[in-house]
Amino acid sequence: MQLLKRSLHHIARRIRAHLVFSNPSLIRLPVRNVATTVSLFDFSQWGTKKANRKLKIALALDMMDPKVEEALTKLRADVKEQGDYVRKLKSNGAPELDIKKAVAELKSRKKILEDKELSLAFNHITFDRARMEDLLKRRFYLDQSFAIYGGITGQYDFGPMGCSLKTNLINVWRNFFVLEEQMLEVDCSILTPEPVLKASGHVDRFADVMVKDMKTGECFRLDHLIKAHLEKIICDKKTSEETRQECRNIITKLDGMTEDQMITVLRKYNMKSPVTGNDLSEPVEFNLMFGTQIGPSGLVKAFLRPETAQGIFVNFKRLLAFNQERLPFAAAQIGNAFRNEISPRSGLIRVREFTMAEIEHFCDPSDKSHPKFKTVEDISMLLYSACNQMDGIRAQDITIGDAVSTGLVANETLGYYMARIYQFLVKIGVDSSRLRFRQHMSTEMAHYASDCWDAECLTSYGWVECVGCADRSAYDLRQHTEATGVKLVAEKKLPAPKTVDVCEIVPDKVLIGKTFKQYSKAILDMLAKLSEDEIVALEKVLTESGEKTLELPNHTSVQITKAMIEVKRYQKTVHVEEIIPSVIEPSFGIGRIMYTLFEHNFKARKDDEKRTYFSLPSVIAPLKCAVLPLSGNEEFVPFVKKLSQDLTKAEVSHKVDDSSGSIGRRYARTDEIAIPFGITIDFDSLKVPHSATLRDRDSMEQVRINLDELPDVVRDLSYGRTTWVKVKTKYPLFEQQESTES
Amino acid sequence: MQLLKRSLHHIARRIRAHLVFSNPSLIRLPVRNVATTVSLFDFSQWGTKKANRKLKIALALDMMDPKVEEALTKLRADVKEQGDYVRKLKSNGAPELDIKKAVAELKSRKKILEDKELSLAFNHITFDRARMEDLLKRRFYLDQSFAIYGGITGQYDFGPMGCSLKTNLINVWRNFFVLEEQMLEVDCSILTPEPVLKASGHVDRFADVMVKDMKTGECFRLDHLIKAHLEKIICDKKTSEETRQECRNIITKLDGMTEDQMITVLRKYNMKSPVTGNDLSEPVEFNLMFGTQIGPSGLVKAFLRPETAQGIFVNFKRLLAFNQERLPFAAAQIGNAFRNEISPRSGLIRVREFTMAEIEHFCDPSDKSHPKFKTVEDISMLLYSACNQMDGIRAQDITIGDAVSTGLVANETLGYYMARIYQFLVKIGVDSSRLRFRQHMSTEMAHYASDCWDAECLTSYGWVECVGCADRSAYDLRQHTEATGVKLVAEKKLPAPKTVDVCEIVPDKVLIGKTFKQYSKAILDMLAKLSEDEIVALEKVLTESGEKTLELPNHTSVQITKAMIEVKRYQKTVHVEEIIPSVIEPSFGIGRIMYTLFEHNFKARKDDEKRTYFSLPSVIAPLKCAVLPLSGNEEFVPFVKKLSQDLTKAEVSHKVDDSSGSIGRRYARTDEIAIPFGITIDFDSLKVPHSATLRDRDSMEQVRINLDELPDVVRDLSYGRTTWVKVKTKYPLFEQQESTES
Repeated sequence: MQLLKRSLHHIARRIRAHLVFSNPSLIRLPVRNVATTVSLFDFSQWGTKKANRKLKIALALDMMDPKVEEALTKLRADVKEQGDYVRKLKSNGAPELDIKKAVAELKSRKKILEDKELSLAFNHITFDRARMEDLLKRRFYLDQSFAIYGGITGQYDFGPMGCSLKTNLINVWRNFFVLEEQMLEVDCSILTPEPVLKASGHVDRFADVMVKDMKTGECFRLDHLIKAHLEKIICDKKTSEETRQECRNIITKLDGMTEDQMITVLRKYNMKSPVTGNDLSEPVEFNLMFGTQIGPSGLVKAFLRPETAQGIFVNFKRLLAFNQERLPFAAAQIGNAFRNEISPRSGLIRVREFTMAEIEHFCDPSDKSHPKFKTVEDISMLLYSACNQMDGIRAQDITIGDAVSTGLVANETLGYYMARIYQFLVKIGVDSSRLRFRQHMSTEMAHYASDCWDAECLTSYGWVECVGCADRSAYDLRQHTEATGVKLVAEKKLPAPKTVDVCEIVPDKVLIGKTFKQYSKAILDMLAKLSEDEIVALEKVLTESGEKTLELPNHTSVQITKAMIEVKRYQKTVHVEEIIPSVIEPSFGIGRIMYTLFEHNFKARKDDEKRTYFSLPSVIAPLKCAVLPLSGNEEFVPFVKKLSQDLTKAEVSHKVDDSSGSIGRRYARTDEIAIPFGITIDFDSLKVPHSATLRDRDSMEQVRINLDELPDVVRDLSYGRTTWVKVKTKYPLFEQQESTES
Repeated sequence: MQLLKRSLHHIARRIRAHLVFSNPSLIRLPVRNVATTVSLFDFSQWGTKKANRKLKIALALDMMDPKVEEALTKLRADVKEQGDYVRKLKSNGAPELDIKKAVAELKSRKKILEDKELSLAFNHITFDRARMEDLLKRRFYLDQSFAIYGGITGQYDFGPMGCSLKTNLINVWRNFFVLEEQMLEVDCSILTPEPVLKASGHVDRFADVMVKDMKTGECFRLDHLIKAHLEKIICDKKTSEETRQECRNIITKLDGMTEDQMITVLRKYNMKSPVTGNDLSEPVEFNLMFGTQIGPSGLVKAFLRPETAQGIFVNFKRLLAFNQERLPFAAAQIGNAFRNEISPRSGLIRVREFTMAEIEHFCDPSDKSHPKFKTVEDISMLLYSACNQMDGIRAQDITIGDAVSTGLVANETLGYYMARIYQFLVKIGVDSSRLRFRQHMSTEMAHYASDCWDAECLTSYGWVECVGCADRSAYDLRQHTEATGVKLVAEKKLPAPKTVDVCEIVPDKVLIGKTFKQYSKAILDMLAKLSEDEIVALEKVLTESGEKTLELPNHTSVQITKAMIEVKRYQKTVHVEEIIPSVIEPSFGIGRIMYTLFEHNFKARKDDEKRTYFSLPSVIAPLKCAVLPLSGNEEFVPFVKKLSQDLTKAEVSHKVDDSSGSIGRRYARTDEIAIPFGITIDFDSLKVPHSATLRDRDSMEQVRINLDELPDVVRDLSYGRTTWVKVKTKYPLFEQQESTES
């Protein structure tokens, strides 16, 4: 019975997660086309426990519809079949190309299953994104940058409400991670010289494929172009059902396609520029970094950083020294990064400049335990493992303790951060039922990562990656060490001292200097960098043939002779060994998290679906309190002024709204900017003891509190030191219907 | 007597301000050459009132030295003579070139006076910048970016201590300005399309002059090159005293020189590349903005913003709407800006990327009063007016109330912000005796500004502009209105409705459309933008000759005829008028303020000048508290752990230092990272009631407090809710000598 209950509960939770998912076809349309979609779902029911329980049961029953289950069972089997095939190919050591093809097919089957799941679960419910976006613009949470100049896609300005929300979000993040875990926070340069990003791999690999209009030069991201073209064909009434099906298949597989496969599609359908109808160029790779030059000579090429992480890696030695040479430690950075997207769409989800918060946790590669893991091991999260994805099985609720002990999550430190990410996201207002951790499949994981889980949030854009959490092993430190010759390593004490054989090269500096003059430094540098194996090999060549040609970094070749070097061999006792630390990296996209918060907290009042509001938790709400005089009566003025000063002293950000309009109408306005608490100065406030009403945004309940106590009560509510439930037990409820009439 | 006392006090304050000013010649040398300079001044005396009083008297007496005063009197007269001459030229309407020359001479005399003042006042005292910079690097407050890749000049990374200081500084700024004044904070894009910065004037005018090495292409900022060359000549033993004097004169005048004058100097001394000795190119202007392209087509040219202000101006309409269409209001932005300096030196003072905090206060141009001016009018500041600068008179201590009422400061709002800037800088630890407000002389003020005062801080780099405070009038909004056709105006209610004559152009859209086809939209747009005067002029031409040629923005010419337009004249009653708001702009350079804080708070202990520390106010100190167990005794461990948890709960950032070393030595380390309070767990802590010592960094005094009270006491101290003096009255002093021996 317990099992059945749990299973039912699980299904209900999953379905609820899909509730606000819009019809996928709507997502691709420009916002104005979605504007007419009507919100059929009564958002007001969210939030009350009773309503949710009813809802869950209803959903669970609906989901049990045999037809629905049958359809899904078939699709699940399809995924599993292909997953098993991929496994078989791999274990048989099949050619890479065959594996790639099989994986592409696997991905496409996964996508069909996921789309079906989402569309079957309440396909009559549409989240009204247009209405929410209208509110976000109207109350200037954010809007397109430089709109009076025509605007630039993929760039947004945050207005007072968005900016304050962002600041609060970042401050909570800093308290939650940096202060509580005593991390080392840094603030590094945005302009990054080319060699740094060459070493990190971004110069060579951080690119998307695009095609150009042969006449106008306009560029299109190849996958977006193909998708738009095929969607047009599908919508064309003259298209046969067979062609339609083919187009749908291609769209589904698009994400997993290689460049060559996309070119084949491009040619098959003879695609032209969607804007002009002109011919298109061959596909070219376009690097997504913004390039510039530092200094006036044009010689120092640089990029705007595409992530903040590299700033931490290049400072590793300083940070290790700051931590008194001890491992493990974590460094963190909050800052802007830039990606020159070819054709950004999807609002805040894909933008050209964005704020990230990244943590790099450096630890001994042979010991990834975490001292505080015990404190989180009972936290249960929705985990969507690589295995489940291959087998067509749903994500599962698992405690992080079980996930680590069974090896599903690679190690304690990775698991600890996943749990902390979960706690953080829920604390700031992400709906836990629309939050999952998806493991990267081995085929999509960066080649250096050993395990990677993305915290994904379900929005009307689908499941959106908001936080990545990867074990990057020693990749980055090794790359920068190779590029610079500066050893980015830590020393680890050996259990016992040990004796090692040393094989060391001793160059004859005088002879080399005399022989090679200005090149001698480069030669000595080169010799100093040789590994023991290379020294032995060099010694062998010199012994056999008496000389050896070296190619210097400036492409000059020089010949060194046996007389120029000596190889010394001796033994020494060492107490420490050098290790390259492993890096666990939680990486937060602040803009995507903000967007998720907007969607997950966009609500409408039960009795008036036009009266929408944001139920953002008070700790991140842009303003904490509204102060409203009941009317324009002069007698209220000194009370409002005094209260405003007292709130400022108590560090409660607030807004006085002394405009005309009924209290109800004004509260509707403060609800729109997510102000969690409101104070009304009314005629009773004028009497001794002076008091006012305090209103809770989410429940719309009010209590009456003396004015001298109010600022502290609001402060404690705002920073989570007390709750509305507790406040209600202490102060008398104030019963009066809010009216929206003025 | 009162007057004499005040005057003495004033002189003493001014001299103290010059105390830590280094020998100017040292500034130009690379840091390593300064490293041997010995700090002769006992910094430990700063801070104690008694010592300061002694010091001031000594300084005042010294300054009274008749020879010193005589030398200055002569220089003051020189300045005044030239100032009067400039005034005379202006009032006589002399040719601009003559005025420019006279102003250049005035500036050079001013500089000689100022240098002399600084050098006479304790020229034997040198601030040991190298020692401070060594500490900043060693404890990773900050360091050069990408050092393992060779580094980039003008770019710095902030390590844990610098980053935390910066965060705290910004949070205090936000509370002090944004929250307390209820400003509208925004967060706008860094990447800015070219047309925006074309309108603001940056594309055309934001440039420095440079010359290039004809062979290597290396670039040099022209004024820096000339200065370095002449300094070399001065240092050459073979140079005659006459030539030396000439070179000194040129260096002094350099800041005020025109490009032509600098070219003349360049040729006269036949200057070559200081690096290679190669010939140099003709001087060219180099725009200081970093350029890039948005999107892959290369067609959308953009720059990294050189200031954050423009993001506020282009959002003016949204902000006005957010403020319910009411003036005045202030918007604020904190963010990064970028300037591609040709050859940045001077550490944090001149860098390529930096954080700014800017306020744009929009108000009615005919009413620049400020409702809160009364609250600051008694604040007295050192004002260095344009007039004083021309007359060779010192800066003067004046209350801002007097400065505004006498018209020295243009209006209340400007004055209010100057006072608030003063309060802010002093609150975070700027030494008020090394802080002045210098008014721009009419010759150096941007052409659009009507008054401008820079808050300058005295450092070893001289007086450094840390905050600018300008009345920018309506310049920026007007420029963006002209560039976009979007009216950036506010509506102002007229005292009484008035009747106005309207003269309106009504184009025949059908006829224009038929005649000009695809060009008709451009023509209609053009006609719609015409002012009333232009309409009348156009009407006249059409009436007289029947047609008129218009040149469209795309350079096509079209001929319109009389039949195509009609001019309507009528009267209407209006209740409001449109006004372009004036803008008062306080603009803070966060990096420069941080650098000033480092210098003004770098101290040494009385008994050990090597034991240096930063006396940063606790509100911005990177960490608030250190927790030190007296020794490695196991019994201390649980107490340290519990205390650390309690401090975290009380939101007190702290550091546990359980390394070996005496308490004194460990406190010396926490002093270096400016931790204001330290707690030692000792053997008495183990006894009931459990207690520990609390130490104040600046006085090194200690008290004994029970462990359960400690976190709240430290929190109140950290956030300025109580003072050390108050804590001392409440808890028993703990007497024990700190020892630095381990």
